[in-house]
Amino acid sequence: MKIAVLGGDGFVGWPTALHLSDAGHEIHILDNLSRRWIDTELGVQSLTPMDSIQERTRIWHAQTGRRIHFHLIDLARDYELLKNWLADNRPDAVVHFAEQRAAPYSMKTDRHKNYTVNNNVNATHNLLNALVELDLDAHLVHLGTMGVYGYSTVGAAIPEGYLPVGIETVAGDTVSQDILYPANPGSIYHMTKCLDQLLFQFYAKNDGLRITDLHQGIVWGTHTEQTRRHEQLVNRFDYDGDYGTVLNRFLIQAAIGYPLTVHGTGGQTRAFIHIQDSVRCIELALKNPPQRGSRVEIFNQMTQTHRVRDLAQMIAGMTGSEVIFLPNPRKEAAENDLIVRNEKFKLLGLDPITLENGLLSEIVDIAKKYAYRVDRSRVPAVSAWTKDIAAKVDHDPEGRRLKSVS
Amino acid sequence: MKIAVLGGDGFVGWPTALHLSDAGHEIHILDNLSRRWIDTELGVQSLTPMDSIQERTRIWHAQTGRRIHFHLIDLARDYELLKNWLADNRPDAVVHFAEQRAAPYSMKTDRHKNYTVNNNVNATHNLLNALVELDLDAHLVHLGTMGVYGYSTVGAAIPEGYLPVGIETVAGDTVSQDILYPANPGSIYHMTKCLDQLLFQFYAKNDGLRITDLHQGIVWGTHTEQTRRHEQLVNRFDYDGDYGTVLNRFLIQAAIGYPLTVHGTGGQTRAFIHIQDSVRCIELALKNPPQRGSRVEIFNQMTQTHRVRDLAQMIAGMTGSEVIFLPNPRKEAAENDLIVRNEKFKLLGLDPITLENGLLSEIVDIAKKYAYRVDRSRVPAVSAWTKDIAAKVDHDPEGRRLKSVS
Repeated sequence: MKIAVLGGDGFVGWPTALHLSDAGHEIHILDNLSRRWIDTELGVQSLTPMDSIQERTRIWHAQTGRRIHFHLIDLARDYELLKNWLADNRPDAVVHFAEQRAAPYSMKTDRHKNYTVNNNVNATHNLLNALVELDLDAHLVHLGTMGVYGYSTVGAAIPEGYLPVGIETVAGDTVSQDILYPANPGSIYHMTKCLDQLLFQFYAKNDGLRITDLHQGIVWGTHTEQTRRHEQLVNRFDYDGDYGTVLNRFLIQAAIGYPLTVHGTGGQTRAFIHIQDSVRCIELALKNPPQRGSRVEIFNQMTQTHRVRDLAQMIAGMTGSEVIFLPNPRKEAAENDLIVRNEKFKLLGLDPITLENGLLSEIVDIAKKYAYRVDRSRVPAVSAWTKDIAAKVDHDPEGRRLKSVS
Repeated sequence: MKIAVLGGDGFVGWPTALHLSDAGHEIHILDNLSRRWIDTELGVQSLTPMDSIQERTRIWHAQTGRRIHFHLIDLARDYELLKNWLADNRPDAVVHFAEQRAAPYSMKTDRHKNYTVNNNVNATHNLLNALVELDLDAHLVHLGTMGVYGYSTVGAAIPEGYLPVGIETVAGDTVSQDILYPANPGSIYHMTKCLDQLLFQFYAKNDGLRITDLHQGIVWGTHTEQTRRHEQLVNRFDYDGDYGTVLNRFLIQAAIGYPLTVHGTGGQTRAFIHIQDSVRCIELALKNPPQRGSRVEIFNQMTQTHRVRDLAQMIAGMTGSEVIFLPNPRKEAAENDLIVRNEKFKLLGLDPITLENGLLSEIVDIAKKYAYRVDRSRVPAVSAWTKDIAAKVDHDPEGRRLKSVS
């Protein structure tokens, strides 16, 4: 297949491009490289030294003989360029990662809120609009998030996208309907993925677009089979308070002798998936497109759930690190259960990688190898969800100057 | 109260500004005048000769001694200007009409789809973002649409925004929850109002904003008590295929001896409200704000439902016009029932104006008075919902060259 990977220079986009290229597909990365610009804005960098996209693709060609094509296009701002590229290339499938993907970044200031809404909504809408305009029946696979559900507290299992509900008619009967699971986003970033869902629903219904939406959990790990092949193919590894995800952050904290920082009680239950499984799931989704005219196909792309404090204890046990509890900069329930249906990928053949099977030590090794590159001042999470919360939290675990959270 | 009316130069915005000014409030209109620019783009004009906003407000002052202030601001494009205006003026309430509001216009071309999404989402989000940033506890009253519900075909009554559903827990119990009524928009325009709903839900939950969302039916009529006071205070009257709403279009067709054009079977049931009731409802909403921290308050702002073909027959009976059936350029169910709950405004004191009570002839009089200004070529609805539909329909009722719709 000819596959366009939008946002193919990012944390999951890059290993996906490699994985699909390795499987024999013709890969075109479209990216505006905004993630690298945001590193520059925040003054942070990937723990792993990361080459330019041009250099990465050159190394991949030298190693494998395969070409990955790169096109610098801003999907949100340059509709005509995107449309022309799609018209000239007519890919069989499009994998869409091209959105600002950090909840804390999306909540930093009013400017970051506007940027996230504007960028994410327009990137997704421009793409859908161009596919219809060009009468291009490419299968669209979108990276969504488990965060569209919010975190259920009613004790019900979260289905894969659709919830059957009973609706009472005026005649007094109850009619069962499948509805898109009610959205309850916890940040501006998560909200944009809820907006995406409505865009997808409309374009599938009105124009028959074939769309798969992957509600992904928190990705952990850094290597896939392909990124291991050469030092310069290494994936990015974010450890900062905005883009670093919780498990990877614990591992880097352990590696540099920083306390493991749990925000709130750590009673938040989250869904996780290893990056190797993430790229496998995307390949499975590409192999199983929905029929034209059918509703949006939704998968829960996660393999395990864990409470944050349990993860911290697990890493502390492995590494001898201290666990400390900080005020939570997010506005969210202190404790939540999370039961998630995820049978669909397993039925398609996914054999999940679990936290317990040794990959954790691989990440600790990476963290130790590059520990000299860590800027300790960038480890704390500093984006508060509201002004009230910002006034109450202080994020300096090493100085222990913590205000209380009432 | 000091009230900002965003989009106060439009079809409902202008009579709302007059009505609230007449009631003694300090009114500030913020508008980018985009509706006038779209008239220019489409080569159409209001049936009624409409003065500039500056002239209109001058006449209002001369007639009543009251000032309505006008500020030329593009909410979607100029966040900083909006924020600065709000910071300087700190209104008690904001009425938000500032969105592209025609479904056919939103479906015209890919450019119009992008414009509608970009303009509407950013206008709403910029406003919410600025209120939070400024810690400004103004009550936000938003003009939404009945179209967020789609048109129910399961025979259930449409509640005022929230639907109680039973959700089965893993323990086997059923827990009842109120959810935002599942969105099922029929056009890009309607979809943007569904996106707005999620923005409102998030900002009410995360930041405690006080928000009322009015799910309005199709507005008919043109005069309110205030617009009648002087010829130059007249409201706009759109009759073209993009911005003209169905009942007003039938009336103008009757006035100029054009057949009444029903699209499809006319079995579509729609919700209606007279413009005089519309401005009264907005005033009632302003008088009854939700508490800070509570969920978004939602009203169904409509007073009657009618099938389109029944409306056509009613006008034909009044005027002797011919009714003809054209292919439907919209993708929608041919026939639908519509049962809508609307008790909330009645409990607050609304005594609805109904179609039967004489106001129809008032509109026919306006239509006859200005019939010399009608451009017959702009009457047909020409925006098709999909390329397939565009290929099948031909919109020249006078020439009767109609393709069949399969």
